[in-house]
Parts: sequence; structure tokens; C-alpha cells
Amino acid sequence: MVFKNKAKGARYENELYDMLINAGYRCIRVAGSGTKKESNADIVAGKKGKKYCIEVKSSKKPVKYITTEQIEEFVIFSQIFGLKPIIAVRFNREGWFFLNPKYMKNSGKNWTISLEIARKRGRRFGQAFS
Amino acid sequence: MVFKNKAKGARYENELYDMLINAGYRCIRVAGSGTKKESNADIVAGKKGKKYCIEVKSSKKPVKYITTEQIEEFVIFSQIFGLKPIIAVRFNREGWFFLNPKYMKNSGKNWTISLEIARKRGRRFGQAFS
Repeated sequence: MVFKNKAKGARYENELYDMLINAGYRCIRVAGSGTKKESNADIVAGKKGKKYCIEVKSSKKPVKYITTEQIEEFVIFSQIFGLKPIIAVRFNREGWFFLNPKYMKNSGKNWTISLEIARKRGRRFGQAFS
Repeated sequence: MVFKNKAKGARYENELYDMLINAGYRCIRVAGSGTKKESNADIVAGKKGKKYCIEVKSSKKPVKYITTEQIEEFVIFSQIFGLKPIIAVRFNREGWFFLNPKYMKNSGKNWTISLEIARKRGRRFGQAFS
């Protein structure tokens, strides 16, 4: 089950990577991003004047949890490199939403993104990466 | 043989990654950097005010070739993200040298780094990543 989720995570990461490449971005996928504890991002993407650090999440349920540690590392990494941090979340049957991490809710140990917040605050691909 | 070289490449990439982590850098290794044609870098490393894009090369011979296409992609990628490009080259029994790509020689299809140039123009780890 863990393996299945990991494979699915990698599949969605590749899906988004291809979408960005097709939109003219230069991208890198971060090695071991789904496995390493100190993971700081999944994809780094940029084109003239636009530089993004992207954390990719997918969920079958209408809410997704991310550990506070992971979010902190992600934001610090973005700051060091002058990248705009984006949470890319893909809910089943709803597709991709792209959010500023500030819209996530903090419950101490975890941060959460709900489908509700994603619909309200998230941007679609064409808006986020025009 | 190709596989052996690839494994060795990955080992040296990990070696340098660990050296950077130990020197207080936040790093990412680029997924598939040794396999994909459009590879733009191997390691991205930074700490406050310092941001590097690193291409890792190793050689048993006293000269290493890099395709012009790869160097161009590497430099464009560095520019988009405002990273300082560094060629990290490890010659057998000589260890690591870190060079600005401008010190490489262009012979049309390829760029070359010789051990001689690396000794003359390259910096050692402590100098390059102080």
C-alpha cells in the first residue's frame, strides 16, 4: 500500500513535470523527494522572471496532511533560492490546484489542505503558470 | 561498462552531495540527471547569499569531454534561476576541482576540461564552498 502510494505520487509528479515542460518551463525533479525525510521540494521550475519551488501532493480524500517539518524545510529552501513556493495538490476527480502555502491550516504537528480551501484559494494550471 | 560508469557517476554525485550537506548547504540532487538527454544540472546547492548549480563529472583520464548541448542547457538553467554555474570534476587520484565553465575549452561539438586546466583554474572544495 505504501509502495502503491509512492508509485502514484511519482506518477502525478511526472504528470505535472510534463505539463510544465509543455508550458515552456525549465524543470528539475528532485531525486528521492518521495523518500527522504529532509526532502525540500519535488519540482523546481522556471522561465524568464518566474521561479517556482513546487511540493506535489495527491489525495483520494478531501483533505491532505503535510508535516510541519516538511513545510518548514520547503519554505526555507524556497527562500534561500528565491523561488516562489507552491503547493500542487491533486484531488481525485477534481484535478490539480496550486496554492500559496499560506492558505494551508496549521494544527501543530501538521498542516492541512482541504478540497474546500483548494477550490476557494487554489489556482488552476493555466492561472498559476501562465 | 556503461552501467558501471553510471553507478560510479552516481557514487561521486552522492559524495559531493554529502560534502555540501556537511558544509551547511541545502541541496537537491536532480532526478535522472545521469540519464536524461535534457539534463540541466546534477546538484543545486545554496545557503544564505550563495546559490550554485553544479554539473558533476568524473574521469579516469586526464581529460573530460562534455557535449556543447549539455553545457548550453546547464548555463541557461543556471541563468534562469540566478545560480552560479560550477563544473565539479573529479579526476582519479587527484580529487575534486571546481571550475567556472568559462575555463573549459570549446572544440565545436564538445567542451573539454583537462587535468592541467583543472589544476591551474580549479578551486578546491574549501575555497569554492567556504
